[in-house]
This record gives sequence, C-alpha cells and structure tokens, in this order.
Amino acid sequence: MTHSLTLRVYYEDTDLAGLVYYANYLKFIERGRSEWVREIGLDQAELREAGLVFAVRRIEADYLKPARFDDLLQVGTEVIDRSGASLTMRQTVRRDGIALFEARVVLVALGPEGRPRRLPAELRRTGG
Amino acid sequence: MTHSLTLRVYYEDTDLAGLVYYANYLKFIERGRSEWVREIGLDQAELREAGLVFAVRRIEADYLKPARFDDLLQVGTEVIDRSGASLTMRQTVRRDGIALFEARVVLVALGPEGRPRRLPAELRRTGG
Amino acid sequence: MTHSLTLRVYYEDTDLAGLVYYANYLKFIERGRSEWVREIGLDQAELREAGLVFAVRRIEADYLKPARFDDLLQVGTEVIDRSGASLTMRQTVRRDGIALFEARVVLVALGPEGRPRRLPAELRRTGG
Amino acid sequence: MTHSLTLRVYYEDTDLAGLVYYANYLKFIERGRSEWVREIGLDQAELREAGLVFAVRRIEADYLKPARFDDLLQVGTEVIDRSGASLTMRQTVRRDGIALFEARVVLVALGPEGRPRRLPAELRRTGG
Repeated sequence: MTHSLTLRVYYEDTDLAGLVYYANYLKFIERGRSEWVREIGLDQAELREAGLVFAVRRIEADYLKPARFDDLLQVGTEVIDRSGASLTMRQTVRRDGIALFEARVVLVALGPEGRPRRLPAELRRTGG
Repeated sequence: MTHSLTLRVYYEDTDLAGLVYYANYLKFIERGRSEWVREIGLDQAELREAGLVFAVRRIEADYLKPARFDDLLQVGTEVIDRSGASLTMRQTVRRDGIALFEARVVLVALGPEGRPRRLPAELRRTGG
Repeated sequence: MTHSLTLRVYYEDTDLAGLVYYANYLKFIERGRSEWVREIGLDQAELREAGLVFAVRRIEADYLKPARFDDLLQVGTEVIDRSGASLTMRQTVRRDGIALFEARVVLVALGPEGRPRRLPAELRRTGG
Repeated sequence: MTHSLTLRVYYEDTDLAGLVYYANYLKFIERGRSEWVREIGLDQAELREAGLVFAVRRIEADYLKPARFDDLLQVGTEVIDRSGASLTMRQTVRRDGIALFEARVVLVALGPEGRPRRLPAELRRTGG
C-alpha cells in the first residue's frame, strides 16, 4: 500500500537552473515519510520524548526528470522491506503520474544513546 | 481581506534548538504570498516569462513565540499599502490563533533589466 | 569593531530568479554571528549544555542589491546596543565593498525554560 | 587525486535531533564539487551562459556517523569514472579523518535544451 502526499514547489525549492535543487527532493520525501508515520498512528514528537528516533542509513536516488516552480507533486511512500530494527522504503516523486525522482531509503530506529532499537509495533506490522 | 495558508512544520524546518529555524519563517510567508498571488488569478510562471518578477525590498519581523516540529501553522497575508510599483503586506504566522511571527514586507515589481515596473492590474485593485 | 566573515554563494543559495533567495541572507548573517561569538571566546555548544541559548527577537532588513551565484561575500557583524539580557547588532552583507543587504538584529539570551537571562560576561563587555 | 574543501556546520544545517539534517550533506558535497570545478579552471557561471549545465543523475549515499553543530568538516571529491557525457565521483565528508558520509554521484553535462552534451575538455582529461 502506497501513502501519497501532495505538495507544491515554491521559490525556496528552486535554484538558478530554474529547477528544483537536487537536495530538496530529500526534503520532499522526508515530508512524505512524516505524513505516512502520522497516518499509521505514530506520533513522532512522542516517540522522540520516549527516546526513539529514526535515522536514514542509506539512500539510492535516481533523478529522472526535473520538477519546476509551481509544480504540484505527489510523493509516494511504501515499505518494501523490514527487519527488527530497520525499514526499507521506496519513495517516488511524480507530476501528473510521471516519475521525476525515485529513491530507495534505508531507515533504522535508534535509542537515546544512538544504539539500534526495535521498531515500534505499528511499523513492524504495517503491510508492505 | 486576509488570505490564509495552512502548512505543517517538518524536520527540515527545525534546528538543534528543537524549534523552527529563524530564516524558515521567511520561507513560510513566501509560500503564503505565492498562494495569495495564485488566488487573485495571477500566474507567477507566466509573469516571469513576460519579464516581471517581485522582489522583497524590506522586511520588519518580530519573533513572538517559537513554532515546533509537527505544528500546523496558518500563514495570514494581507495588503496594507500599495503604490504604483510597490506593495506592502502584513504577514502573520499563527498556531491555534496565537501569533508566533509577524512581518511587514515591502515588495516591488521589477522588469527584465531589474528596473521598477508598474504592478499588474490584479495587484493594484485587490482590496487592502 | 566589526567582525568580518567571507563566504561563497553556492547553488543551494540561489533561486530560479538566478539570485540569492531572500531567506538565505538570514543564514549568512547567522553564520557571521556564530563566527563572531567564537572569536570573542564563547563556545555555543558549551553554552547550550549550560542551558543558555540566543534567540532572535526582531529583524529589520533591507535588500539593497542582489547577490549572485559564485559571488564572494563579506558578512560584517557589530554590536550597536546592549542591555542586561539583549543585544542589538548591525549586520551587512557586501560584495567588493558594496552593501547588498543590511540588517538590524535584536537577540535575547534565554535560559532552559525559555525565560530571559543575563548575557554572558564576554558579551556584556565586548566593545560596540 | 582528491580535492578537499573544509566547511563549518552552522545552525541552519542542523535539525531538532541536534545533528546535521540528512539532505544537507547533499549541499555540502555540491559545494565540494563547485570548488573542485573552480580549481580545475572551469567557470560555472560562464559555462551556464554558454548553455552548459551539470545535472545529478544518480546518488548512492551512506550515512555512517552524524555530524554536529560547530563541527569542522572536510569534503573530499574525486572522479572515479568518466565517459563522453558523464562523470562519476566519490565524495566523502569527514571529521578529523573519520568518514561520516560517503556518496557516489553520477553527473551528466546538458545543453540548453536539456540534451546530453560532451563534457568540457578540462573534465575529460583531469586525472581520476
């Protein structure tokens, strides 16, 4: 099941090439993950206070076509693999159904001292 | 008449103090201005191609209370003064009706060579 | 006495107008303040651990001329007023001696619960 | 041969976890590539005017250890493969010699209409 977030490209997202600056796609997909986490019923602020954070371990990203100022984009987020302490996601940024950016993101759950921790139950059981 | 845009605070917006980084309020209000311009029927991308851009000339901003991760914020945008080539706006960022950030922003319209230009008719006649 | 920091404009700083995005000047002057604080012998990381942070209360900023990709800029930082818990600074961004951006920034020192706190001695006695 | 750029971590680079926000490493390595390009004698602003831009096609990035506020980082940049129109680079962000972030970046040269273009001679002949 794929979670979808719609977002608008603003001035802040572009660079002088007139396109979305390449690092900003990582912001877009992080927003997608945040909304996905909220949808499955987790409160990231509460988790933080309980000493649990998620950290990105690895990203493989393909820049397929450029996004531009004022574009309305869809960020698709789905889990493609999971283990006790890590989660692998596929995230795609599309405009009108056309993929512009595609990434495979490996996340780990970390405890207060930065040590790997078991994922919260909500994340272990969500359908991939 | 005040235009209102709702936005969410994401990780990218915070800094190590756990609050929204001070420069990012300027991103928030620029999003508000972009959506306001769209609502009154102007297409910024078309204007750009016709050689017209808006530039910020001056900002006076008060940081009243901090916004935090995951907050849902409202950006209010209203015109408080206008002349032939410039526009003064009041923009306020609120959470649950409480003002967190307030700015007075002076904008000018510029032509292709960076010279001041008359505002588009839609902006001259919008009610303040 | 004015502290000076030199910095380069990179892609990340520009927007589709081909100029430095207006919010990013606030990043530039914050870098200037950080280096100034280091120079007068304060360690911001240590202060944080001791529960002291600086927060911007107000900014008045004039955008005089645009900075562009690859520009080498100088950020000038000087204290123009101080009281027990607040500091007012003038910060100017220049290219080849020409002022592009000028701001008056009011900072306050805050304790762990977000209450105003006396400035560290180093900041009270630094020459304006 | 590896090009090295030293940079400082500022407030703008951190997020509420107290660490450098994951998208910002992509800003750091882009600064590294810009300085490397300058060192081999290419002027990116001139190239742009001549209709040549570089675009990132793919990134594989490993987040090994977190960078923190106030850290002094070294960005290492080296070419590991090249063809007529593309360049593959290895870029590493280190603190005190310890690798924190490592990326493999594939870049292409594009002409004015966004079509692949032959790399400038300086880039084809630089030692890998």
